[in-house]
Amino acid sequence: MSLIVVGTMAFDAIETPFGKSDRIIGGAATYISWSASNFTRPIHQVSVVGGDFPESELNALQERGVQIDGVQIKKDEKSFFWSGRYHLDMNTRDTLDTQLNVLADFDPVLPESYKNAEFLMLGNLVPAVQLKVISQLQQKPKLTVMDTMNFWMDTALDDLKKVIQQVDVLMVNDSEARQLSGEYSLVKAARAIMNMGPTYLVIKKGEHGALLFHGNQVFFAPALPLEEVFDPTGAGDTFAGGFIGYIAQTKDISFDNMKNGIIVGSAMASFCVEKFGTERLKEISKADIDARIKEFVQLVNFDINLI
Amino acid sequence: MSLIVVGTMAFDAIETPFGKSDRIIGGAATYISWSASNFTRPIHQVSVVGGDFPESELNALQERGVQIDGVQIKKDEKSFFWSGRYHLDMNTRDTLDTQLNVLADFDPVLPESYKNAEFLMLGNLVPAVQLKVISQLQQKPKLTVMDTMNFWMDTALDDLKKVIQQVDVLMVNDSEARQLSGEYSLVKAARAIMNMGPTYLVIKKGEHGALLFHGNQVFFAPALPLEEVFDPTGAGDTFAGGFIGYIAQTKDISFDNMKNGIIVGSAMASFCVEKFGTERLKEISKADIDARIKEFVQLVNFDINLI
Repeated sequence: MSLIVVGTMAFDAIETPFGKSDRIIGGAATYISWSASNFTRPIHQVSVVGGDFPESELNALQERGVQIDGVQIKKDEKSFFWSGRYHLDMNTRDTLDTQLNVLADFDPVLPESYKNAEFLMLGNLVPAVQLKVISQLQQKPKLTVMDTMNFWMDTALDDLKKVIQQVDVLMVNDSEARQLSGEYSLVKAARAIMNMGPTYLVIKKGEHGALLFHGNQVFFAPALPLEEVFDPTGAGDTFAGGFIGYIAQTKDISFDNMKNGIIVGSAMASFCVEKFGTERLKEISKADIDARIKEFVQLVNFDINLI
Repeated sequence: MSLIVVGTMAFDAIETPFGKSDRIIGGAATYISWSASNFTRPIHQVSVVGGDFPESELNALQERGVQIDGVQIKKDEKSFFWSGRYHLDMNTRDTLDTQLNVLADFDPVLPESYKNAEFLMLGNLVPAVQLKVISQLQQKPKLTVMDTMNFWMDTALDDLKKVIQQVDVLMVNDSEARQLSGEYSLVKAARAIMNMGPTYLVIKKGEHGALLFHGNQVFFAPALPLEEVFDPTGAGDTFAGGFIGYIAQTKDISFDNMKNGIIVGSAMASFCVEKFGTERLKEISKADIDARIKEFVQLVNFDINLI
């Protein structure tokens, strides 16, 4: 039940209406693995960091069952850095600074031990790099999940479409679904995107929940109404991590089980936003997660008898 | 199981990205009663129209079990008129024209037969008029539900707060909940508003569903993902009508049954937006409604076993 997680490991500096962080640990693969490792181990990480990335962070991940053979450490270079400021609604943000650093010429090399993985999670990253990972696999995984964003639609659409063609589950947010499909209606957008390759599409709507589409079926998972969203950074990655972690744990890729995966992902994301960065993800226990999932069950539970 | 419905009966002229209507029948009480009469009859309507309001529309309502003894017909005056244009997202709109006409000096008089009603639905209307209706009742209804909007928060906040104090269930949309409470977080907004009087609060989020708050409990109902939202006018009123109609039918005002009411309201609203004005509401059958409610059950249904 091995899982490959591909994505950035990086530094972020974040401003929200509630405060401002120093340079803290971030990156899609970081959040995905902190989230997924609650459900499945080992995780085979594929990423690149500079000499400035703390060894303690790599050790902490290894203690969680995250293998880092596939993480390149370029001692004389700097890690990827992103800085952003969130607006009051926490659904929109401005990028203040992006320094690619080690990411600029990242050429992923899959260790032999990774090449027969059953599950592949392509976190948000340069599509060309995602393609290089796929091309090194010895067999098609049982399930390939891809998370991406509007930046690649603007700058690398051809490559992006090549990756999309090869994945089973695509995850984007609502505005990205509209951009990628050219359709305003999410139902029409979903149909158009599934015609590009993926048989499953997840549309993330932040505080408004998430939709899972498959053929003519649709499932809706709410977001938990929270007193405060402290820092949304990494919520999408954490969602993806909970989803693929649960799927890898249960080894069941049916639509019905994917619904559960979406709920687990939503529960994990609801923790992520409670504190800056990965802080909350590092604190929570299995009991916390189970209790949160039960809150989701309660949140949408109703029992109507048609009269 | 008598139900009083208070609100406007009016003409609307609507522009959406999909088209433009002539002067068509609208008004909160119109939509509420078309929706509620699928579940409970008789309905005691309280409203005011001018001599220009078609008798055929009043007859059609009466055939649905809507009694119009409480509807004042001012033959020499004109009905309330509203004209608006929706933006592409259908969640925002500009008011192009408002002509109060008969509404300007509306003084509701409750017929004797209305005064012991078990359920009271105060549709969106001048708060002072809503107060006058409450003051004429001989006994407190089993449940009083109030729908209102930002316009009254801007222009009649004192009166509005007096009504809010006396109702059991308040319905507003998300931006109105924020305006009324001064809180951005909907969880905090809900707590603040419930401190103003209502023990239940419904926050409507349009295409993003609706939340029901009661004490520390919360329930979330999704909106059905639709291929096209043709005209959102009256969706909130139709939602309210489905809710109160179902509650009046089942006579059960528990939190658990209100969840069902929210689902029924959401199902009714999903029909309303499929065509201009009340057109779709006039077409649908009980079988259509039951099938739609089953779609909602499917939409959020999942069965997770914590491992």
